Amino acid sequence: MSWFDRHQALIDRALKAANERSYWSPFSEMPSPKVYGESAQADGKSAFESYCGGPFELDQAGQRGWITPEASPYGLSLNVAYPNCDPQALIAAAQAAMPAWQAAGARERVGLCVQAITELNARSFEIAHAVMATTGQGWMMAFQAGGPHAQDRALEAVAYAWQEQSRIPAESVWEKPQGKNPPIRMRKQFEIVGRGVALVIGCGTFPTWNTYPGLFAALATGNAVIVKPHPNAVLPAAITVRVMRQLLAAQGFDPNLVSLCVTDKPEVTQALATHPAVASIDFTGSNAFGRWLIEHCRQAQVYAELAGLNHVLIDSTSAYKALLDNLAFSLCLYSGQMCTTPQAILVPQGGIETDEGPKSLEAVQTDLAAAIDRLLAKPEVACAVLGAVQSKETLERIEVAGSGAWGRVVRPSAALVHPEFSGAQIHSPLLLSCSMEDEAAYMQERFGPIAFVVSVPSTEAAVQLSERMVREQGALTVSVYSTRESVIEALTRATWRSRVALSINLTGPVYVNQSAAFSDYHGTGGNPAANASYADSAFVANRFRVVQRRQHID
Amino acid sequence: MSWFDRHQALIDRALKAANERSYWSPFSEMPSPKVYGESAQADGKSAFESYCGGPFELDQAGQRGWITPEASPYGLSLNVAYPNCDPQALIAAAQAAMPAWQAAGARERVGLCVQAITELNARSFEIAHAVMATTGQGWMMAFQAGGPHAQDRALEAVAYAWQEQSRIPAESVWEKPQGKNPPIRMRKQFEIVGRGVALVIGCGTFPTWNTYPGLFAALATGNAVIVKPHPNAVLPAAITVRVMRQLLAAQGFDPNLVSLCVTDKPEVTQALATHPAVASIDFTGSNAFGRWLIEHCRQAQVYAELAGLNHVLIDSTSAYKALLDNLAFSLCLYSGQMCTTPQAILVPQGGIETDEGPKSLEAVQTDLAAAIDRLLAKPEVACAVLGAVQSKETLERIEVAGSGAWGRVVRPSAALVHPEFSGAQIHSPLLLSCSMEDEAAYMQERFGPIAFVVSVPSTEAAVQLSERMVREQGALTVSVYSTRESVIEALTRATWRSRVALSINLTGPVYVNQSAAFSDYHGTGGNPAANASYADSAFVANRFRVVQRRQHID
Repeated sequence: MSWFDRHQALIDRALKAANERSYWSPFSEMPSPKVYGESAQADGKSAFESYCGGPFELDQAGQRGWITPEASPYGLSLNVAYPNCDPQALIAAAQAAMPAWQAAGARERVGLCVQAITELNARSFEIAHAVMATTGQGWMMAFQAGGPHAQDRALEAVAYAWQEQSRIPAESVWEKPQGKNPPIRMRKQFEIVGRGVALVIGCGTFPTWNTYPGLFAALATGNAVIVKPHPNAVLPAAITVRVMRQLLAAQGFDPNLVSLCVTDKPEVTQALATHPAVASIDFTGSNAFGRWLIEHCRQAQVYAELAGLNHVLIDSTSAYKALLDNLAFSLCLYSGQMCTTPQAILVPQGGIETDEGPKSLEAVQTDLAAAIDRLLAKPEVACAVLGAVQSKETLERIEVAGSGAWGRVVRPSAALVHPEFSGAQIHSPLLLSCSMEDEAAYMQERFGPIAFVVSVPSTEAAVQLSERMVREQGALTVSVYSTRESVIEALTRATWRSRVALSINLTGPVYVNQSAAFSDYHGTGGNPAANASYADSAFVANRFRVVQRRQHID
Repeated sequence: MSWFDRHQALIDRALKAANERSYWSPFSEMPSPKVYGESAQADGKSAFESYCGGPFELDQAGQRGWITPEASPYGLSLNVAYPNCDPQALIAAAQAAMPAWQAAGARERVGLCVQAITELNARSFEIAHAVMATTGQGWMMAFQAGGPHAQDRALEAVAYAWQEQSRIPAESVWEKPQGKNPPIRMRKQFEIVGRGVALVIGCGTFPTWNTYPGLFAALATGNAVIVKPHPNAVLPAAITVRVMRQLLAAQGFDPNLVSLCVTDKPEVTQALATHPAVASIDFTGSNAFGRWLIEHCRQAQVYAELAGLNHVLIDSTSAYKALLDNLAFSLCLYSGQMCTTPQAILVPQGGIETDEGPKSLEAVQTDLAAAIDRLLAKPEVACAVLGAVQSKETLERIEVAGSGAWGRVVRPSAALVHPEFSGAQIHSPLLLSCSMEDEAAYMQERFGPIAFVVSVPSTEAAVQLSERMVREQGALTVSVYSTRESVIEALTRATWRSRVALSINLTGPVYVNQSAAFSDYHGTGGNPAANASYADSAFVANRFRVVQRRQHID
């Protein structure tokens, strides 16, 4: 039984969910022994620990040494040594691997990809430890976002890749009537060919969630993939690549269809990205490097998720306390290091109407700060929610913001001590207050646990500001709180024009940061924050081309 | 009954054909009175004649005068005056028209597009006269390629646009189980929004066939479209735009969803193409301008069909005479002014095996020249097949080629007198002979009735040369004649690597130049000749984006 046959029900169900946009996930987001096995937790931990302090063998082409680039935001000693491979050798090996992958056809490719995803699912604990240690995420997020949710996004991409490829017939008979004469008959054959070597450049915060869609979309459509992880979050990608190389080899394919390029030198990545053989690039990261890629990599399709200016508009609410709690959680979760975390909170200067009566701007600021304090009151909860700060740049940014350079400090950031990891870089969110005019402060991404309460003259002005922020700076998420249909309608129309997803009155257990595979499009692909979406047809349809041949038949 | 309901069977049938890649066309390619009506021919001619020498009113925004740019390759006096409109006003009007078009939804948009196509079909004679007079095509090609075949390609694009949009649900209920607790329930709504104003830049030779796919794909996916025809082939586009504006207005939509920008100044087109509001550009034309667009129009998706180096490899044949006749017709049809016409004919220097015994390279050259002579023996047939030469640049190119600058002249081009149009620029194909080393001669597009017999050391060398030509220069078509499976297999694999369509042993009534909608992909989108294909999912899927909103429900 082929992998495709074995997984067909899963693929069909995934496509049904994606086309209905309803809730569905085949992978349990709870790290439960009942689902993952009694020993899964211990096995995952010990697998992770076994990597630390040693070489991570991948048996790749062009290895010329080892590289040990990671520093853990939790202060753990990782010291995993990865192969340092000549990029040109990786490309040559990838190219050599492609013809047999093309010949296998879409069905076999998709079946193998789904099998890989299920094997990655079985390794969720191991991957979660690797994600947590390298990114600074809290354990639960590392498990969910690094494991099942990333696997969901992978499966979603493969499902779309199957949907688009499955409708290309292998061949057809073209029979054109000729009146009373016999028809003209031709056999036409259609070959799906990949575009070329795919490069997937990961980020330091979500090394699987943001890598899997491009990796699996490119592989399923017939391309060999080189994964270039962020130098500080290599291990989750390395485990993924090893699982896939082993599976490919076991199935008789060249393992070089998936390889890992570890480097901390931007010029190496640049040379790889501009290589004539590289036909597609998936990138998650900074505006600066993303724009460089778009500018310089003309030979490739670039799918880029860059920085954005996510924001919340608070007009009024019938659940003030729940609003504050929901928003506080959004700001605290992984210390604001999600691409979907709100940065600016737009509040009318005259205050807002709530179920607890009118609240002044000042009161909203204070109450939000208090809600954050409340959420973080217990140190173990605080550390679990906040995780650790991933990068030096973010630590520096917290300092600048704390100095008052970008606005009045409503709630200072505080360093926390992790009960388990003494070296962990843990810092609670910093809340600033500024006015709509202070664009130099809030009108660019301040990645990390830094948020601005921006006072606006009116809700109408806030709607206009929102549209301009998205058009000019981009955003992955906009959120609104209002009891007035007219406000929701106005912001809905603004988000249609600026092309950004809108969450309305989130006061329950769903947060604006969260994006559910098969249902929520992550990024619209229509504003500067991202030129593509997880996932839709556009994310996969241009990763392969169809080459036809035709000849007469009797 | 909505237009969609009225045309649903047609749309479904079109999608079935596109997904089966079998023969199908809803529009008769024969200009028969039985199909188009007894008076269609006369009505079409008189409609065409009524345009000549007068203003072509479109009632567009920002009109600041008239422009009369066309010169007929048949020497006809056209003197049609078109509105000269301020491009900024056209863009503003297009933007203003888009919200209601978005609100109408995919179903209504697609229905209206199909209705427009059927109305254009009813005007096939009128459009054919306009195509013939402006492009120099012979009557039958002007009717078929300018009318029903262009309409087929339009319908194909709309069918794909429907396929991709129809699977986006308007809304869904997302219900996430919470164990023993009630599920989390959210309503999610999904709005399909166009990318922005679409610009469709036409070419001088196929003003409908190469314009309709982009025009209809962009319109059906929610975008307003500005059609910028080639200054020498405006009338077919102008008639199309008028039909569509009238239909839009009659349905209560803003007619500025489709407008015409007539200019003969490249700087006007450049300003339009780089305008921040222009989100997609469809272009058919020269490499120079196409590359300029790709280089400079970073704000837009560019779908470009550029020059290429189509070629034929002759290894051996079991039908020598039929091969010569087929190839001669391909070279003569519209004087080689098709983007699919072969330019280089690769023949082993040691000659080829045929059903008439071995033929030397010299014999193949002579016999092909003779086949062209035979086809063009009757002046009325010659004029009908050749049509007229569209541009001054092509006339100049024929002269340079005739001087022997690019190789030995095997068959000189001759001027012909058209029995009906004394001013027609008619020139038979020029056949040159050169060697594989003479890359300066044949290794770039020499658009028009100029072909090279290129002598190659061996068939194997020809296969390698073919792959390199496609990779470096691009091609829309490659054709092979061989009785050896190994040769066909080798070239098949080469075309997979270089990503170009292959025609095998065409010796009957199908020519390599011809590309049938719903079955043949026109361009693979995978080599330098074109970065997109008529038509596939990739041609439509990135022309719209999905903007979602979500909120809790009970």
